[in-house]
Amino acid sequence: MSDSTKKHSATNLLWGGRFGQGPAEIMAQINASISFDKRLYRQDIAGSKAHADMLVASGILSAEDGDAIQAGLDQILGEFERGEIALDPALEDIHMHVETRLRDLIGDAAGRLHTARSRNDQVATDFRLWVREAIDQLDLALTTFQTTLLDQAEAHADAIMPGFTHLQSAQPITVGHHLLAYVEMASRDQSRFADCRARLNESPLGAAALAGTSFPIDRHATAKALGFDRPMANSMDAVSSRDFVVEFLACCSITAIHLSRFAEELVIWSSAQFGFISLSDSFSTGSSIMPQKRNPDAAELVRAKVGRIIGAMNTMMIVLKGLPLAYSKDMQEDKEPAFDAFDSLSLGLAAITGMVGDMTFNIDRLHDAASAGFSTATDIADWLVRVADIPFRNAHHITGTLVKMAEDKACMLAELTIEDMQSVEPQITTDIYEVLSVENSVASRTSFGGTAPVGVRAAIQAHRERLS
Amino acid sequence: MSDSTKKHSATNLLWGGRFGQGPAEIMAQINASISFDKRLYRQDIAGSKAHADMLVASGILSAEDGDAIQAGLDQILGEFERGEIALDPALEDIHMHVETRLRDLIGDAAGRLHTARSRNDQVATDFRLWVREAIDQLDLALTTFQTTLLDQAEAHADAIMPGFTHLQSAQPITVGHHLLAYVEMASRDQSRFADCRARLNESPLGAAALAGTSFPIDRHATAKALGFDRPMANSMDAVSSRDFVVEFLACCSITAIHLSRFAEELVIWSSAQFGFISLSDSFSTGSSIMPQKRNPDAAELVRAKVGRIIGAMNTMMIVLKGLPLAYSKDMQEDKEPAFDAFDSLSLGLAAITGMVGDMTFNIDRLHDAASAGFSTATDIADWLVRVADIPFRNAHHITGTLVKMAEDKACMLAELTIEDMQSVEPQITTDIYEVLSVENSVASRTSFGGTAPVGVRAAIQAHRERLS
Amino acid sequence: MSDSTKKHSATNLLWGGRFGQGPAEIMAQINASISFDKRLYRQDIAGSKAHADMLVASGILSAEDGDAIQAGLDQILGEFERGEIALDPALEDIHMHVETRLRDLIGDAAGRLHTARSRNDQVATDFRLWVREAIDQLDLALTTFQTTLLDQAEAHADAIMPGFTHLQSAQPITVGHHLLAYVEMASRDQSRFADCRARLNESPLGAAALAGTSFPIDRHATAKALGFDRPMANSMDAVSSRDFVVEFLACCSITAIHLSRFAEELVIWSSAQFGFISLSDSFSTGSSIMPQKRNPDAAELVRAKVGRIIGAMNTMMIVLKGLPLAYSKDMQEDKEPAFDAFDSLSLGLAAITGMVGDMTFNIDRLHDAASAGFSTATDIADWLVRVADIPFRNAHHITGTLVKMAEDKACMLAELTIEDMQSVEPQITTDIYEVLSVENSVASRTSFGGTAPVGVRAAIQAHRERLS
Amino acid sequence: MSDSTKKHSATNLLWGGRFGQGPAEIMAQINASISFDKRLYRQDIAGSKAHADMLVASGILSAEDGDAIQAGLDQILGEFERGEIALDPALEDIHMHVETRLRDLIGDAAGRLHTARSRNDQVATDFRLWVREAIDQLDLALTTFQTTLLDQAEAHADAIMPGFTHLQSAQPITVGHHLLAYVEMASRDQSRFADCRARLNESPLGAAALAGTSFPIDRHATAKALGFDRPMANSMDAVSSRDFVVEFLACCSITAIHLSRFAEELVIWSSAQFGFISLSDSFSTGSSIMPQKRNPDAAELVRAKVGRIIGAMNTMMIVLKGLPLAYSKDMQEDKEPAFDAFDSLSLGLAAITGMVGDMTFNIDRLHDAASAGFSTATDIADWLVRVADIPFRNAHHITGTLVKMAEDKACMLAELTIEDMQSVEPQITTDIYEVLSVENSVASRTSFGGTAPVGVRAAIQAHRERLS
Repeated sequence: MSDSTKKHSATNLLWGGRFGQGPAEIMAQINASISFDKRLYRQDIAGSKAHADMLVASGILSAEDGDAIQAGLDQILGEFERGEIALDPALEDIHMHVETRLRDLIGDAAGRLHTARSRNDQVATDFRLWVREAIDQLDLALTTFQTTLLDQAEAHADAIMPGFTHLQSAQPITVGHHLLAYVEMASRDQSRFADCRARLNESPLGAAALAGTSFPIDRHATAKALGFDRPMANSMDAVSSRDFVVEFLACCSITAIHLSRFAEELVIWSSAQFGFISLSDSFSTGSSIMPQKRNPDAAELVRAKVGRIIGAMNTMMIVLKGLPLAYSKDMQEDKEPAFDAFDSLSLGLAAITGMVGDMTFNIDRLHDAASAGFSTATDIADWLVRVADIPFRNAHHITGTLVKMAEDKACMLAELTIEDMQSVEPQITTDIYEVLSVENSVASRTSFGGTAPVGVRAAIQAHRERLS
Repeated sequence: MSDSTKKHSATNLLWGGRFGQGPAEIMAQINASISFDKRLYRQDIAGSKAHADMLVASGILSAEDGDAIQAGLDQILGEFERGEIALDPALEDIHMHVETRLRDLIGDAAGRLHTARSRNDQVATDFRLWVREAIDQLDLALTTFQTTLLDQAEAHADAIMPGFTHLQSAQPITVGHHLLAYVEMASRDQSRFADCRARLNESPLGAAALAGTSFPIDRHATAKALGFDRPMANSMDAVSSRDFVVEFLACCSITAIHLSRFAEELVIWSSAQFGFISLSDSFSTGSSIMPQKRNPDAAELVRAKVGRIIGAMNTMMIVLKGLPLAYSKDMQEDKEPAFDAFDSLSLGLAAITGMVGDMTFNIDRLHDAASAGFSTATDIADWLVRVADIPFRNAHHITGTLVKMAEDKACMLAELTIEDMQSVEPQITTDIYEVLSVENSVASRTSFGGTAPVGVRAAIQAHRERLS
Repeated sequence: MSDSTKKHSATNLLWGGRFGQGPAEIMAQINASISFDKRLYRQDIAGSKAHADMLVASGILSAEDGDAIQAGLDQILGEFERGEIALDPALEDIHMHVETRLRDLIGDAAGRLHTARSRNDQVATDFRLWVREAIDQLDLALTTFQTTLLDQAEAHADAIMPGFTHLQSAQPITVGHHLLAYVEMASRDQSRFADCRARLNESPLGAAALAGTSFPIDRHATAKALGFDRPMANSMDAVSSRDFVVEFLACCSITAIHLSRFAEELVIWSSAQFGFISLSDSFSTGSSIMPQKRNPDAAELVRAKVGRIIGAMNTMMIVLKGLPLAYSKDMQEDKEPAFDAFDSLSLGLAAITGMVGDMTFNIDRLHDAASAGFSTATDIADWLVRVADIPFRNAHHITGTLVKMAEDKACMLAELTIEDMQSVEPQITTDIYEVLSVENSVASRTSFGGTAPVGVRAAIQAHRERLS
Repeated sequence: MSDSTKKHSATNLLWGGRFGQGPAEIMAQINASISFDKRLYRQDIAGSKAHADMLVASGILSAEDGDAIQAGLDQILGEFERGEIALDPALEDIHMHVETRLRDLIGDAAGRLHTARSRNDQVATDFRLWVREAIDQLDLALTTFQTTLLDQAEAHADAIMPGFTHLQSAQPITVGHHLLAYVEMASRDQSRFADCRARLNESPLGAAALAGTSFPIDRHATAKALGFDRPMANSMDAVSSRDFVVEFLACCSITAIHLSRFAEELVIWSSAQFGFISLSDSFSTGSSIMPQKRNPDAAELVRAKVGRIIGAMNTMMIVLKGLPLAYSKDMQEDKEPAFDAFDSLSLGLAAITGMVGDMTFNIDRLHDAASAGFSTATDIADWLVRVADIPFRNAHHITGTLVKMAEDKACMLAELTIEDMQSVEPQITTDIYEVLSVENSVASRTSFGGTAPVGVRAAIQAHRERLS
């Protein structure tokens, strides 16, 4: 072990050793949150302003002190916006930074601001405000994503491509129809975020440490001032619960999963072998040695980002597992995963929206791929059922025989003669050739939600109205 | 390595070796789903009945065939209920089992049932129906859980216990108030499931393989017959999307996290050191050697079950990550995690509801614990602010000095003389003694959502109305 | 809410309601483990036999009782093997089943078997034995997987295919080289399992409930009899620790990730667009309507199984998070995830091994794909550095210009004239044409671990020796 | 929806909108890694120096250029150490920063450094070096943690405390014995990291982009120079594999789980109700209003940190799921989770080591708790087996009757008279009183690994030798 020890001391010099530090330093490092909760300065100040207003209105604080507090907080907000507040780990968190600066500015009156509240309800309020605003941002981004998809879907409402199952061509579909599937997903993602927003939009402010307060506060007033729908109904719950964070992260994760599926398709579609799309220069990277190459780096990164977003949700759930009420310091670990998931998801949404808006579909190649592989076989079977009244399972069997025949002859289904076909099933007439083109196949699928261009255009219109 | 090889062959005899199996057996094992999707027989038959009715109404199927199919399906349902259907791995899945049995019963007409649908939309329909019913079950269970909590909360609306932060007594609260925090959580859990239910309650039926169909089907009719709010608007999305499963599992996970927190409290509270509660014999296990002992096994298991529920959500998210459209066989892995999470959560809810209903609070011990540790210190501070108009931060400092004085004298705060108190802060009057009892402390916290018994009773009433 | 209640009662009849059950039934359901720990019967009996032998040797048990116990246990083992033991939830777990049956067979002497042990050390022993045997099975499976890969790698040591980055062709490689990458991964997976096995191979037996025992037992003897390397050194740790399960699941997860990467490649390679491989009929599924189709279902399922394996690891980690010593009932949740992960991984390994052994490489198509896209551009750059002593970065720039020229002329690099080339870089000579074929490119990469066939063959040989 | 849109535009001003940005900005943000891979500057420079030396030795680079490169790299290292290198997102990553600066310093010769390597093998090399050093740091931290535990264990080798199952007192143990359980866990954690280190300690350098190179490089030489055990044997694997990161994160996760269990115990033990330990002022936080209070914030944070560490492992596994070979941009997401897990774990280890070193055991309280609850009941049963030769199960039953008797009489077991005892079991003699004290109980458990102080001291000695 002596050899390994030597190695250690060598690297130790380079890494610095946490164990050379005293307890105070270690405690400061693990305990302080200002390095990340600084991001809550706007919410923290907004919460304090609403609280101070209410204290004045409730007769707990004098109007004079109230005015001083408001003016001080406004100034501090400006200082934060302009980056003039130096962060000090000794002041631990954003609340202490604001309060300390306020005392500098207005003196003892600052000490009255904390009446009838506690850091426990204060931080819960700040964080709910932040998540609410994050949701509003993501909602906007999801709208832009959908609009961009709709534009491409409209431009390619008739363009034919293979519809895949198992990454094998199954039936022809339209490009527009395929893109609309992602509009549906994004639309549900949006509605999921909206539900999450409605559920979290309750005010913890005034729950105080955990038990409420004996001051005659008006929690409904602060709730209203901060845009909350109502105050939370139980003070223990108000300071202890973080299900809103888990739910937010679940919404982010599901959205990110959808993006990862689309990104995977973009990577596959932009391979030379598929050649279905070309990504723009903006959203691909080249190579100095192979100038013709466009690597789908942005798509790959979007595909990968789902990892850290799901990771963040796991982080939060594990922190909460088995945690007794009310506030425990464990909860301080709630913010960084939410921040990271939001940043990753909004970046991913921006990138994929950019890619979708910029990309080019290689229409001919898509059409050829859709036509290959006897992709209209099910149309024959449906014709047999519809026209010749053959039971579905039998019709399938007959069609299989025809496909085998075409495969043996190395021809397309449409190239089989009527005699060939009738040798398999006498009821077949030449009408059957009509269903064999991919154009007719696609046009025939007019069932609600089907791939027929007419249905695709109707769906685009409906989505545009929803989003307008 | 020869030694290890020998060991292997020995154990191999006992374990059986997958590699002695032929490809066909391995493929059958990995491919077949009947071992778990048998659980969908009711949903599968219901979906087929609705589909057959619609085919008749749309003129795609004759009334005669339709009647035969309905009768046959009814009989099969009965056979499943009575356990008369032998499962056969060669028939792969529940759909083939039903279809094959139907052919036995009614002959070729069975082959017409599959007209204008595919296994892809069929399984998506079945599974949405199952999840919807699972949510209804969990909703009921959550209502019972809340009702049970409300009964205990009402019985202990005045009972005083310590309110903890960091597992340290912070302020006195009431038992009823603490229990209501879990009612709030369960109520949000319920609303989360309701949102999930509303979002998933759309019918994939008629999306067919992925592109829709050329048959003149009526998807609105089948949607209505199956209790769906509407048909899904895009056929690709209908067969490809499983976000409803992830969302369901997220709802389950969040609920399970709440249960794990409560279970942790039950374990701690039932320790000899806390002694806050006694679990009933029904929900604890004894020891033949220590008959006085009651191990909180059920609470520990509830605490642990959150692991597999979150595990199930991860399973589903990982399956979906980066999966191209439309149907891929990967999706077959969607059911087992949902089944297991539902079973675990409903069992956990039943167990914790049983525990809550049966458990006894040790009122005296709770009261004593609430009174210890200068737990009304914040009441002094609030008194100083309210009565003597001292800024909050200063009031805190003064109170700290009084607590230190009491600690040094090894007495309670209420045992400090008025002279002691005035030596620290001259404005203190004997009125202050009124706020020092835990009863008065608790009673004074009448802010909305606070722990005062009057507020607790009002909250119980509001919850009872919501749940009735 | 009355409407939803009605719906509930309807479905409730069908689902059965857990809340109609009494506490005893709920407790039995959540508490009993026999439904899954029955799988440990061999391990449990082996542990008991070793314990009984040791008790006799230590003079704690009479030889007569010892003989009766051995005979009884042998009989019970046979009964389990033959499926003659009826499982009874009232007997809770596998230990009680064995002990109760033993009492039936040999009477009171059965009661002496439990001397100096407890269910806590017994179950830990059983489970370590099980995991150890699971690892031995997986080790065998990983060897077979590698051998199968080596056979295919050897058969295709010279076959040329594109080497991808970003799913874009970057440089030509050999098929054998690509397959060897997975041999490397599997080999590390194997070594990881071996490390896990060595670390867990210590005996908890004799730790008793948690504190050890006052009986003069010989833990080294039982450890040796059961094939453990030594007894665990701390009795608290012996009954409390499950890191061996998490580590086992981490090994499974990493292996499953490797399989998912390979499975993804198989899915992509077997698409019509890539057409690199054909899966055998055994490991693909067809379609009655498209007999030419081969869906890579098995590959997709292998890709998906990683979800539940990682899910199982999460389950176990979450169960253990924040769990105080020593035994808590939470730990009963340790077995099912391990069983499921083992079953899923061994099935996945069998399936992918089958696929690899059976699949056909489409050599011509691979070669054509490798030749496209100026894939030997880096060979030009390397030639410029090596022969003309041009700095690497400049050589890259020159090559880029040549590629652009070829692209503009719509020709291959080898089709540029020497004059074309010299117009870009005068030092180029006709020697450069030698590096432009994919065969020469591949053959030139003879650096250790490179793709040159000679290196591939050497690596195959080295792996064969390691595995023999 | 217009109302919600208004809200959006308001907040949008405050948040800044990603969608106001052009594609180039979005691409730069998602693509650049310098914000985090700057942390690899030492490893990147070390790798380049080894590569340059090898190029000179192999005759690929002139000695002159080699000297210039070495001098330049040394200077750049110093500039990084002194914080003199300004990071530029346009230069994307750490490799480009070093290369660009080198070109500034030494001109065109810098362009020769990249001969026979690529960013793909370069970043894999850098990251393996980083993880290796991280492991060395954690190994040191784990040694210090164990040493600190051993010191406390030695000081409390005889101190008696309750041994818990289900958080219920089961049998008396010693404090030293309990602490040693964590030494065992930490020791396995250390060995797990050592295995991970050995497995990852292979050099990817020279794998080039993915296929190896045609330059006559010496990969064994660079491997040796960088302290690797050997070069990796397959170039595709070398650039594609990140199992070493997952394994590292699994080791971190398991260690963090162990810390979370200990932290949970510290939180419970420092509650007023348990009162088993007092944390030092350094590692607890007070309250200005309750100066007597010591909140175990540091323990809570250690308990919580396991969340983000497991989250990081999930992130990495999800990124790798289904990722085709060789390099994909997804892999850029590998570093941040590893950095965060390392930082969190090393901070957690430092904090818990500090807490353990500083904390005080409340010996009397522990002793009283150990004596309560008939904790020596199993000692009676063992006496009955040992001395009176009663089968274990019967002995348990008799003991249960005695405990019930003591409970009914509200006395300790030792306070039952011999007549009381003999009324239950006539073979009992007064010798039995010897096993009823917790001291004798503990002293009697001398089986290997048991809690007897003599065994604890021997184990401490063995651990000290291992660690020295």
